[in-house]
Amino acid sequence: MVTVAYQGEPGAFSEEAARGYFGSGVRLLPRESFKDVFEYASRHPKNFGIVPLENSLYGSVHQNYDLLLRHKLSIVGEIKLRIQLHLMALPRVPLVKVRSVYSHSQALGQCDEYLRSLKKVSIVAYYDTAGAAKMIRDQDRRDAAAVASTRAARTYGLSVLKRNIESNHHNFTRFIVLSRKPGLVKRAGKTSLAFAVHDVPGALFKALAVFALREINMLKIESRPHVGKPWEYLFYLDIEGSPTEKPVQQALKHLGELTSFVRVLGTYPFGTTIKS
Amino acid sequence: MVTVAYQGEPGAFSEEAARGYFGSGVRLLPRESFKDVFEYASRHPKNFGIVPLENSLYGSVHQNYDLLLRHKLSIVGEIKLRIQLHLMALPRVPLVKVRSVYSHSQALGQCDEYLRSLKKVSIVAYYDTAGAAKMIRDQDRRDAAAVASTRAARTYGLSVLKRNIESNHHNFTRFIVLSRKPGLVKRAGKTSLAFAVHDVPGALFKALAVFALREINMLKIESRPHVGKPWEYLFYLDIEGSPTEKPVQQALKHLGELTSFVRVLGTYPFGTTIKS
Repeated sequence: MVTVAYQGEPGAFSEEAARGYFGSGVRLLPRESFKDVFEYASRHPKNFGIVPLENSLYGSVHQNYDLLLRHKLSIVGEIKLRIQLHLMALPRVPLVKVRSVYSHSQALGQCDEYLRSLKKVSIVAYYDTAGAAKMIRDQDRRDAAAVASTRAARTYGLSVLKRNIESNHHNFTRFIVLSRKPGLVKRAGKTSLAFAVHDVPGALFKALAVFALREINMLKIESRPHVGKPWEYLFYLDIEGSPTEKPVQQALKHLGELTSFVRVLGTYPFGTTIKS
Repeated sequence: MVTVAYQGEPGAFSEEAARGYFGSGVRLLPRESFKDVFEYASRHPKNFGIVPLENSLYGSVHQNYDLLLRHKLSIVGEIKLRIQLHLMALPRVPLVKVRSVYSHSQALGQCDEYLRSLKKVSIVAYYDTAGAAKMIRDQDRRDAAAVASTRAARTYGLSVLKRNIESNHHNFTRFIVLSRKPGLVKRAGKTSLAFAVHDVPGALFKALAVFALREINMLKIESRPHVGKPWEYLFYLDIEGSPTEKPVQQALKHLGELTSFVRVLGTYPFGTTIKS
C-alpha cells in the first residue's frame, strides 16, 4: 500500500489534506517536522509526502520552499483546504471550567480575538493543533481546551464548545504532494518554478517576458531576497501549462539564458478545494 | 514633542525600530494592536506610527498591507531590524529552575529547536515578546523565562540565560513609518504600490511593462488572491524612484489604464539596517 507522510499528529490539517487528496486507500504516516516529511519522501520513491506551501492569510511557507530547493523531489499535486478552527474539550466539560487553551501558535494567533474575550484563561502554545487535542485526551485534562479541527475532535473523542472561532474566514491553506518521480501531466496543468536574477533594472521583467511573449499565464509570483546572496533575488513563480508543451519548454530554455539559476519544482493538475 | 505609536509593550522590537529610526527626541506610545497604531496615526496628523511589513523568514505581514489599504496613511520611511532572540529570567534564576517559557507565538516558533531541547518545560504563548518579560518582572516569576530582545531584558531588569536561541540568524524585519502626510522624497527613494489586475493571460506582464519600458527598477513583488474578488489578483510592488520624477509619474498613469485599482502606499528613502 502507498504511504503518505505528513507533519503533525493524527487529526492534523495535513492529514485532512492527505485524505482529501488520496482518499482512504493509502497509509498515512505522521512525522514530527516538515524536514522529516521531505526526508521520508526522498528515501521512499514509491511513496509520497504532503506539506503546506501557502496560506491565504499568512502567505508562503518559506521553510517548505527552502526544503524543496534542498531536496530532489517534485510537486506532483496540490489540494486547498479551508481551515476551520474550533474550541474543544473532553465531553461534559463546560466552557466556564476551561483554565488553559492549547494549540499550535499560528492557530492561536488566528483565534486571538475570541481567545482574548475569555477571562482568566491562559493561552498555551503547543507543537501541533491535533497534538493539543491528543494531550487533553491522554492526560484527561478537565480544566483545558484545544483549538483544532473537527477531525481532531473526532480522532480524540472531544466535544466542540464553540465552532469557527477564527477571526478571518477566508483562511485557506494550499498543500502540495511531493514525490521522487515527477508528475505526468501532459496538458492543462500548472508548473511551479524557482529562479534567481541579479538585482539589475529590468531583470525580472525580462524573465517574465519569456512567458508573456509566449502567452503563458502566470498564476503566482513572489520575490524574496536570496539568503546569503545579497545582490540576487529569488522568485517563486507558478505558470499555467507543462514543460511537455513546446511553448513552455521554449520559455524555460529562454529563462535559463536570463537567470543565474532555474529549478522546475513540478508540473501537476490544478487542485480542488475541500473544507476541513 | 512628536509621538510615535507602535504595537507592543516597552521593550518590543517595534520600539527598537522606532528608536533606531527617530532617535531619542520623540515620545514613544505603546498600543495594543496594529489596528490601534493605524488609528492613532490617522487621528494625529503631526505624529507617526511604526509597524512591521515583512520578515525575511515569514514573508509579508498581510494584516498590515490590509490596514494600509483601509486607512489614508502614507509610508514615509522604513528601517530594517536584525531580530535576535534571547532566553531571559530574573537575576540569579538558573536555567534548571525554569519550568515555563513565555513569548509571542512567532518568536517561540523561531526558537523551536532550542526550546524543544529543554526538558520538562512548557512553552506558553504570550501576546508580546516584551510583554512576557514584563510579566515575569511584575509577577516575580522565579520559575519562568521569556524569549525577547536585549532591550526587553534591560527594560525589565532580566538576565540573559542564553543568547541568540533563534534557529535561523538571517532574520530581518522591515518596519515602515506611517503618517497622514505623504513623504517629500524628491529623488533616489523608493515607492510602494498596491494594484489589482483581472486574471487574464499577460495582465501582470503588461502592468510590469509600464515600469520596465521606462527603466524603473522593481525591488519587491508579491501576488495575492484578492479576498472577496475571486477573479482578481492583488499585487504589492516596490519600485525605485518617486512620483515626482516624470518617468514614474507617467508609469503610474499608464498603470491606471491597465489595472482595476492602483494605490500609491508611499514614497520614502531607502532604510538602513540596525541590530536588535
